[in-house]
Amino acid sequence: MDKSQLRELLSLVQQGQTTVEDAMSRLKTLPFEDLGFAKVDHHRSLRNGFPEVIFGLGKTKEHIRAIMDNLNQHKSNILVTRVEQDVFDFVKDQFPAAQYHTLARCITLENNPLPKKPGEILVVSAGTADLPVAEEAYVTASIMGNSVEKVYDVGVAGIHRLLYNQEKLSSAHVIIVVAGMEGALASVVGGLVDKPVVAVPTSVGYGANFGGLSALLCMLNSCATGVGVVNIDNGFGAAALANSINSLTEVS
Amino acid sequence: MDKSQLRELLSLVQQGQTTVEDAMSRLKTLPFEDLGFAKVDHHRSLRNGFPEVIFGLGKTKEHIRAIMDNLNQHKSNILVTRVEQDVFDFVKDQFPAAQYHTLARCITLENNPLPKKPGEILVVSAGTADLPVAEEAYVTASIMGNSVEKVYDVGVAGIHRLLYNQEKLSSAHVIIVVAGMEGALASVVGGLVDKPVVAVPTSVGYGANFGGLSALLCMLNSCATGVGVVNIDNGFGAAALANSINSLTEVS
Amino acid sequence: MDKSQLRELLSLVQQGQTTVEDAMSRLKTLPFEDLGFAKVDHHRSLRNGFPEVIFGLGKTKEHIRAIMDNLNQHKSNILVTRVEQDVFDFVKDQFPAAQYHTLARCITLENNPLPKKPGEILVVSAGTADLPVAEEAYVTASIMGNSVEKVYDVGVAGIHRLLYNQEKLSSAHVIIVVAGMEGALASVVGGLVDKPVVAVPTSVGYGANFGGLSALLCMLNSCATGVGVVNIDNGFGAAALANSINSLTEVS
Amino acid sequence: MDKSQLRELLSLVQQGQTTVEDAMSRLKTLPFEDLGFAKVDHHRSLRNGFPEVIFGLGKTKEHIRAIMDNLNQHKSNILVTRVEQDVFDFVKDQFPAAQYHTLARCITLENNPLPKKPGEILVVSAGTADLPVAEEAYVTASIMGNSVEKVYDVGVAGIHRLLYNQEKLSSAHVIIVVAGMEGALASVVGGLVDKPVVAVPTSVGYGANFGGLSALLCMLNSCATGVGVVNIDNGFGAAALANSINSLTEVS
Amino acid sequence: MDKSQLRELLSLVQQGQTTVEDAMSRLKTLPFEDLGFAKVDHHRSLRNGFPEVIFGLGKTKEHIRAIMDNLNQHKSNILVTRVEQDVFDFVKDQFPAAQYHTLARCITLENNPLPKKPGEILVVSAGTADLPVAEEAYVTASIMGNSVEKVYDVGVAGIHRLLYNQEKLSSAHVIIVVAGMEGALASVVGGLVDKPVVAVPTSVGYGANFGGLSALLCMLNSCATGVGVVNIDNGFGAAALANSINSLTEVS
Amino acid sequence: MDKSQLRELLSLVQQGQTTVEDAMSRLKTLPFEDLGFAKVDHHRSLRNGFPEVIFGLGKTKEHIRAIMDNLNQHKSNILVTRVEQDVFDFVKDQFPAAQYHTLARCITLENNPLPKKPGEILVVSAGTADLPVAEEAYVTASIMGNSVEKVYDVGVAGIHRLLYNQEKLSSAHVIIVVAGMEGALASVVGGLVDKPVVAVPTSVGYGANFGGLSALLCMLNSCATGVGVVNIDNGFGAAALANSINSLTEVS
Amino acid sequence: MDKSQLRELLSLVQQGQTTVEDAMSRLKTLPFEDLGFAKVDHHRSLRNGFPEVIFGLGKTKEHIRAIMDNLNQHKSNILVTRVEQDVFDFVKDQFPAAQYHTLARCITLENNPLPKKPGEILVVSAGTADLPVAEEAYVTASIMGNSVEKVYDVGVAGIHRLLYNQEKLSSAHVIIVVAGMEGALASVVGGLVDKPVVAVPTSVGYGANFGGLSALLCMLNSCATGVGVVNIDNGFGAAALANSINSLTEVS
Amino acid sequence: MDKSQLRELLSLVQQGQTTVEDAMSRLKTLPFEDLGFAKVDHHRSLRNGFPEVIFGLGKTKEHIRAIMDNLNQHKSNILVTRVEQDVFDFVKDQFPAAQYHTLARCITLENNPLPKKPGEILVVSAGTADLPVAEEAYVTASIMGNSVEKVYDVGVAGIHRLLYNQEKLSSAHVIIVVAGMEGALASVVGGLVDKPVVAVPTSVGYGANFGGLSALLCMLNSCATGVGVVNIDNGFGAAALANSINSLTEVS
Repeated sequence: MDKSQLRELLSLVQQGQTTVEDAMSRLKTLPFEDLGFAKVDHHRSLRNGFPEVIFGLGKTKEHIRAIMDNLNQHKSNILVTRVEQDVFDFVKDQFPAAQYHTLARCITLENNPLPKKPGEILVVSAGTADLPVAEEAYVTASIMGNSVEKVYDVGVAGIHRLLYNQEKLSSAHVIIVVAGMEGALASVVGGLVDKPVVAVPTSVGYGANFGGLSALLCMLNSCATGVGVVNIDNGFGAAALANSINSLTEVS
Repeated sequence: MDKSQLRELLSLVQQGQTTVEDAMSRLKTLPFEDLGFAKVDHHRSLRNGFPEVIFGLGKTKEHIRAIMDNLNQHKSNILVTRVEQDVFDFVKDQFPAAQYHTLARCITLENNPLPKKPGEILVVSAGTADLPVAEEAYVTASIMGNSVEKVYDVGVAGIHRLLYNQEKLSSAHVIIVVAGMEGALASVVGGLVDKPVVAVPTSVGYGANFGGLSALLCMLNSCATGVGVVNIDNGFGAAALANSINSLTEVS
Repeated sequence: MDKSQLRELLSLVQQGQTTVEDAMSRLKTLPFEDLGFAKVDHHRSLRNGFPEVIFGLGKTKEHIRAIMDNLNQHKSNILVTRVEQDVFDFVKDQFPAAQYHTLARCITLENNPLPKKPGEILVVSAGTADLPVAEEAYVTASIMGNSVEKVYDVGVAGIHRLLYNQEKLSSAHVIIVVAGMEGALASVVGGLVDKPVVAVPTSVGYGANFGGLSALLCMLNSCATGVGVVNIDNGFGAAALANSINSLTEVS
Repeated sequence: MDKSQLRELLSLVQQGQTTVEDAMSRLKTLPFEDLGFAKVDHHRSLRNGFPEVIFGLGKTKEHIRAIMDNLNQHKSNILVTRVEQDVFDFVKDQFPAAQYHTLARCITLENNPLPKKPGEILVVSAGTADLPVAEEAYVTASIMGNSVEKVYDVGVAGIHRLLYNQEKLSSAHVIIVVAGMEGALASVVGGLVDKPVVAVPTSVGYGANFGGLSALLCMLNSCATGVGVVNIDNGFGAAALANSINSLTEVS
Repeated sequence: MDKSQLRELLSLVQQGQTTVEDAMSRLKTLPFEDLGFAKVDHHRSLRNGFPEVIFGLGKTKEHIRAIMDNLNQHKSNILVTRVEQDVFDFVKDQFPAAQYHTLARCITLENNPLPKKPGEILVVSAGTADLPVAEEAYVTASIMGNSVEKVYDVGVAGIHRLLYNQEKLSSAHVIIVVAGMEGALASVVGGLVDKPVVAVPTSVGYGANFGGLSALLCMLNSCATGVGVVNIDNGFGAAALANSINSLTEVS
Repeated sequence: MDKSQLRELLSLVQQGQTTVEDAMSRLKTLPFEDLGFAKVDHHRSLRNGFPEVIFGLGKTKEHIRAIMDNLNQHKSNILVTRVEQDVFDFVKDQFPAAQYHTLARCITLENNPLPKKPGEILVVSAGTADLPVAEEAYVTASIMGNSVEKVYDVGVAGIHRLLYNQEKLSSAHVIIVVAGMEGALASVVGGLVDKPVVAVPTSVGYGANFGGLSALLCMLNSCATGVGVVNIDNGFGAAALANSINSLTEVS
Repeated sequence: MDKSQLRELLSLVQQGQTTVEDAMSRLKTLPFEDLGFAKVDHHRSLRNGFPEVIFGLGKTKEHIRAIMDNLNQHKSNILVTRVEQDVFDFVKDQFPAAQYHTLARCITLENNPLPKKPGEILVVSAGTADLPVAEEAYVTASIMGNSVEKVYDVGVAGIHRLLYNQEKLSSAHVIIVVAGMEGALASVVGGLVDKPVVAVPTSVGYGANFGGLSALLCMLNSCATGVGVVNIDNGFGAAALANSINSLTEVS
Repeated sequence: MDKSQLRELLSLVQQGQTTVEDAMSRLKTLPFEDLGFAKVDHHRSLRNGFPEVIFGLGKTKEHIRAIMDNLNQHKSNILVTRVEQDVFDFVKDQFPAAQYHTLARCITLENNPLPKKPGEILVVSAGTADLPVAEEAYVTASIMGNSVEKVYDVGVAGIHRLLYNQEKLSSAHVIIVVAGMEGALASVVGGLVDKPVVAVPTSVGYGANFGGLSALLCMLNSCATGVGVVNIDNGFGAAALANSINSLTEVS
């Protein structure tokens, strides 16, 4: 409810076209539905540009199916992240148009495929073990209405593989860099381009990697500018930020 | 040196208009100048959108003045961050047009003030102790050619102060959120808007704050989407990323 | 044994009604029973307001049953936390009146349901994955003789869901806030009310969550006042503290 | 603005006694004052039970004096924490009734001394080096309208000193336990009483104390129930929570 | 080879009773046997008071059996720690006199039961979940020739259970304190006695326990004197140190 | 008050030789004196073998002098640790017999020099920068009535320097090992002897030393047995433990 | 493509023997092959001395087989690390000459066994639980063309076992020290020799070992000189560095 | 004392040319001198290739001068690290040939300049703030008899500056990489060369740098092979390791 809607509502009350009780009711009605165990936030597509995404980790199959069902009835586009194949098997009969993305561990159901925005998002990853995170970013950015390109397995230990792809780096509007171990790829990419870089540290590695801490600290301390960091392994969050950035090109 | 320049250079060699030695020299010439203790990177304004910024912390006054002098001779806009008043006093006679921003601890020298980009950057801060970081972001974003607005002292303990400014939140293209202590402001702002949020944790606090760790972890784990995090107290970096994002509106 | 009892005992000795040996024995007798592997503390219901609660994690089924049996013989109310369904299946024949709370992972056996105290305890949780901790708090606070209300899934990323429930926040005597990820909900709730807030960080999240560390630090650094923090995932402890606070309303 | 006020305002609009513009203005007017560098929150005394407390650390003398002046004009009770003697010397001429509490490092100015609430708050501290934190709690709880008692230097290494004061422990409504080093005092006190315990870890210690981390973790892992923890060295926060708890005895 | 043996050997060479080659050989022969994958250190019983103990964690059944066999042939007393029942089942036919201690997860084989030293070692533990560590200490101290007593389940949350056992505390020569969670028991015991206390933090707990870190830091920061700390869950190490201390009473 | 004293007191009451009020008073009188800011624990010399030691860090000169004065009136031996020269200058006129140990940063005042116990304590240190901690241990162990020897600067990087002193290692009853950096000396010494080793990690080092953490972890994980660890830089605590161990030789 | 190759290529263009398009193509062709999920870097054997090693952890069997197949077609020597037996069973039919090293968890396939370099690499390990890491180093160093010796189970708790092998230490060119727990072996070895020492901390241990952190910090803080540290459990990396060092003896 | 010397000594004893007492004395005489506060290790130049280096941090001026004097009398080359100008001023009169290296904070005194070894050591640093560490490495490697080259200020944010120096990278025998912030330079250099890389993380940076932790973890997790890491800011240690490696080229 924004300023002009508030003005209009108050005018209706003033003119006697709306009762006080009705106005109170409308002022209090909020666009979420309470399923008991969850409050589905339908307003989010207005407020944040995409319906509430279902973070699958730690939710039961039944809960996921119920939330999908609720969103599906509103004809929303649906994205479920961090789910294994068995969750998809559990829901696929009810949602025949849903797709499972094995590597990305996501379910998508596009009721209204969004038109592609003009700018391109590029997903760059350091090693093959980073692919699940990179693919989660790819699937997320795609369903949110972006053209997405990939450059995989270009870690800094063989920097010629990255330099070979410099044109792709240059033509993208936003670059998502996915890297584990020492995470140095974000700094190198950040130094090569003048576009926003969204850095995703991954938990790929062992020992003094400490579950992704090494890549996280590396990216936060990047000597390159224009780098924003999201949580370890958070491919979805990186894509959501990249989408938010890429949406600006439509604004102006 | 991009693809088309490479093609042209090779054509000149082919046509005998450039000798092999000259071509080699040009292929190797790189746009930085070696001052001995530093390699000033003039190419960066092409590559990253703004000349090399002088990070003052840990540099001697003499080094800072020498790098400023080198940049000034190239008529670059100059930004020096993390410097105290005494550094400014040391250099101001040589650069009479330079300005010192006390709260932001920055020196600026605008040889060619950049035209303002269409979108607006908003700097939001949680408490008064976060001001130095917020102001560093403000000064940086401004000199990089952005219209910048401020909403200060709107921490979540009195959330009505933030909600009161919701229109400013809505009208900005990019929002920089500066917060110490628990850093919750980034999540709340991220949930209210659909624009990119650049979150800057600050070291403001004590005890279990652990030098900004609490705000940093809070921001990285934000349940709101569209939030990218930079290093603790890195107001400059947040502004550079915001500028990079805001520059996209010019692209399309 | 308090001061007046000590005085009485000494008087009995003085009057020859009690021998020195008897007095020594009574001075040493303490109200716990030694089961060999455990010392059941029956005095606790006097000292701490509720019988010793059985923390199930790491105890064998046999040990749990034996302690339950001992408490049951004293007609105590029994609460067993952190137990899976199989423990309940193992003990339910012996204690037919016992109940298992699946989500909360608790067994309760109310031999003497306590009268409800006047004030109300409200359990607020940020996301659906926080429910097990929130429900452990709910079950614990209920069996300790409190009226308990719930407001679930009101994380700060969609703050209108929380603001919509502001009346419930206002009418509670004590509020338990359960939140994982960045844990910002505690600060926001703490800023909205003037009642004691007991904050429970949960281990819900991944990556830089570090097993609940992010929510824990966030809550400890809360810029809101009136917030006390308990251990990560400690729904029981939060309810015990809330009960202890709520009991004060009976005192005065 | 609560539900009944909203109803009344809308009725006034309906009856033509208030114009739409006036109603909008009132709906938007929020009880804080913007000093530029800070937004003083006068509403807080209604919302949180005490005016905004000035956290002095990191604020300039001028800022502190300006905020004090603003609060003083509203005849608020004023508490400034974490300030050294020189700040007091700077402001004392303007506020002749202000007092400086050396050990607690606080300034107080009681324009309207609050009546004492019925329950008593007890501040218990482990060692003499914990006194500044304990005294900050004492001063804060006192000005907020509580009767406050002290039991100092009763660390667990000589537990008879604590047991000697068991009556004081029993008669208090809320107990604040202040301890550094291993912080074990909170568990021992929590085991002896059935009242809420607010535990304040301090940074007193060295080596593996890690700035108060040892006491903090000890208190969070307390095997005693009814213990809520605040930030390291946060005597003010402990008192604010204790005050919030103690205020409940007035409610019922 | 000590000083007097060296003198004797050199004298034998001088007198021609030992050849140079023999002397060299004896100077180089060291009392360990190389099994290829391990060097069994038979000299340790002279040097450290007990034969090499087999730390079972991470060793294969075959390796454990082979080392046991080697030690058995030297008629050493054998202690294998951190082994599950299946290892015992694998070796018991070959060593019929061996015993498995279920709770302590140890195998013992006493070929030459040691005479009991005069002083008594007391093992004190905080909770029932600490029993495996306490029992490892008990079994270890016993086989090393000590009289060992136990006082279990006397955590500080019910401190009367500990005070009730004060006589046992007073009569012991060395006290091993085993505690998880906040580990406060070590400080309390250390304050009650004037005997050496060996503190063993355990990993019992959850959340901000961080795998035993809370108890470890608590014990290292103990305000009580006379407390030495060993590694988390290291019941064996505590007993070895206690044995080493208790052996001194034989010396003097 | 031990068991026999309790029996006697009760008998006196029974026989009418002591009134009930007197008995109560004696049962409650505890041997500490309350100086207001501190409770001086005179009972400690009975309970823990040495009077309360004054930990100087964080105490004012006036407080230290007052506690010294109180102890001095009881003719106790006095040890003040962690004090600089200026504290000694402040108190020396009042206590002419007091001595300042510059390297150890301790003040001692021996009113009743204790007789030397039979066993010897050896202090071994790794490097010259560890001397302040080693000397604190030396001074403490000496005043507590022990013969103390020193072997300094025998870090493991030149292990022959340690091996050269093996006889001293063998003849000591208890060995205190003081080492910073990687702290490996404790393991090497522990492997060479069969006596109790008290390991003191120091904060000597830089970088990944993290204030003594490296030495602390190294010592806790020692593969040698018979090693107990105290807090970082805690020379006093090491000596107190060594003294407690060495006192056992008098017991038996 | 080095300087002389660039000169030659440009000359060919100048002389018309190569077209501009051809030159561009050659300047861009880089010696890696893109398998889609991975970019196999055949150039690495020139650049880094050995073909790309396949880090098996986190890769699917199919991916590993495909990369092996690609390398095998180039007749490269192949090393796959961190693979279990089942991976070998999956690939062995296709590569009959491949070998599985059980303890080291590596597959090797030597298409062109390298000639042995003159210097010897010695692998020293502290305990039997460190063997998998030590063997990974052994296998890696061997296939890279080095003579490799082993001295296992010589931890510092029985330092005579190490001293006994001093000649082997002296004759090696490079020494790899593999140790978990406190990791002190690296310092002791580093003090005994004047050759480069490559230290590998292992995650062997428990409790305050924190997954290898104790050994890692110990080695980084080594008071011995000439010690370089690699990641926890990184036997491969240690061998690669040792090989790189040992290769220098061929250079000069 | 090696094997042949031992044989010779024993023969002399056998032949009566050496008495038993003399032999014992020689077997025990070790080549260090005890200054009381320090044991100067003259044997180290044989054992480790360079005399004991004086680590100045935490030593008094007098101690440094005394150790220098002792080494000078043996005509050793002397290196003192981590000393400020005032230490040099204190010692320079006594050692007129000594030199102070301001940036490196080292004193050198070359009594016998060593001949240069054939291979070259290259010191590469990321930023100007890393210079003190880089220079400490430079001075150390030089006095140890190495030709040393420098490439400074080539951080990865402008990777063309590094690539421009690829020839220098290729011609070095050993490369020392000095980098703070994210420390990515070590991985990039490691990927470009096949020579041993010694990586030195520096504490340069702020915030989530955590005193050099970010660079340290980054370097330990390097995806490039052939990288050994030393302690944070340990320029000396890096040079000592590089010298040790470079010395191998003389061996073969």
